[in-house]
Amino acid sequence: MKDLFTDANFPRTADQRVYHVGIRAGEVANRIITVGSPSRAERIATFLDASPKPFRLATERGFLTITGRYGGVPLSIVSIGMGSAMADFFVREVRESLSGDMVVVRLGSCGGLVDVPVGSVVVPKASIAVTRNYDFDFHAAPGAEPPYRFSKPVHADEELRAAVAKTLSDTRPAAVAAGVITDTINASTDSFYSTQGRQTSFPDCNSGVISDLQSLYADAATFEV
Amino acid sequence: MKDLFTDANFPRTADQRVYHVGIRAGEVANRIITVGSPSRAERIATFLDASPKPFRLATERGFLTITGRYGGVPLSIVSIGMGSAMADFFVREVRESLSGDMVVVRLGSCGGLVDVPVGSVVVPKASIAVTRNYDFDFHAAPGAEPPYRFSKPVHADEELRAAVAKTLSDTRPAAVAAGVITDTINASTDSFYSTQGRQTSFPDCNSGVISDLQSLYADAATFEV
Repeated sequence: MKDLFTDANFPRTADQRVYHVGIRAGEVANRIITVGSPSRAERIATFLDASPKPFRLATERGFLTITGRYGGVPLSIVSIGMGSAMADFFVREVRESLSGDMVVVRLGSCGGLVDVPVGSVVVPKASIAVTRNYDFDFHAAPGAEPPYRFSKPVHADEELRAAVAKTLSDTRPAAVAAGVITDTINASTDSFYSTQGRQTSFPDCNSGVISDLQSLYADAATFEV
Repeated sequence: MKDLFTDANFPRTADQRVYHVGIRAGEVANRIITVGSPSRAERIATFLDASPKPFRLATERGFLTITGRYGGVPLSIVSIGMGSAMADFFVREVRESLSGDMVVVRLGSCGGLVDVPVGSVVVPKASIAVTRNYDFDFHAAPGAEPPYRFSKPVHADEELRAAVAKTLSDTRPAAVAAGVITDTINASTDSFYSTQGRQTSFPDCNSGVISDLQSLYADAATFEV
């Protein structure tokens, strides 16, 4: 560790880079698309203007930032990996590297709780968190504690959500049968396995997690991690 | 996506690889050291036996597995990035790729809650989770809900913990003044910022999170994410 940190609240390197995403002011745009894997970021980046040549920075903490222009408008594509801790690093460190609005569209694949064709695109109106309750006794069960917690919904910015949904609908190729689904709720989970109801060799007490979710939120449609 | 998945509960690729860590049976050892960054994994891997040549697999989901032998004993070093979701992928997918005991030592840097010199090594006896309560109103505050939750402790395997602590103490170079600390509690958090008490521009209501933690667990000594 060669850097001397003068601020433990918000550590930056000597050249003013945020410590995990690795960027500094001027290297990220106000309009951002996030994805979970670098190959998706690179694929989207092929649509950026050829000039000026896009900026590109990968860190060994799992972040890739590509900043360029699309039709002349500055745009960043940031791959942030998986899990809420990575999303937290992204939001906080990019926020401190920007002035003005920070407009984020998250793009990814998801698990489906509704019967729609593969290839459907979902633009949810809100997300809830589903988290494992570490104080539940997963071996003895059942007790007073519930095994999983379902948070209140957090709503997407309505103007941005409507614009994304309309653009996706308007530009959907006629040959694609699968449609664009809006007005559903997304469930962001802390595990791909237990919290999404998968049955594995671990004692997860999760056979009821999907029905519990659907009882609380009848319009829950997607799972992400 | 070229693979056809026949088991949604535990998806594997056509050649039987787990879907995020990327390995299959035979490519990971029962003894495992995990770290958070690939460079640390590579540095530890320099100590592996030269022959047989170590196996190495990186996936674009942020995992790097290096499997070789140390003094003839099979050993894997796995870089798993940051956050509990990544740890969950690691534990579950490696468990399904192994027979017999799975022995894991997690190695990393941490935040310090106790006044010890830089360079001190901590071998905690247990970990707790500190998590943000998404249902707390971080703008209106305070309400009936607490802003952060502190889980019950989960204890390390005592035999393994004692062996690691003894070996680290016995092999500590005499020139290193900073010691080996044992019998403390580690706090594993869902954010490097809010849950670890850092004061930033976000409304985190976290000025009391460290004192609340220390009130509950007087022997809490370290923070990790």
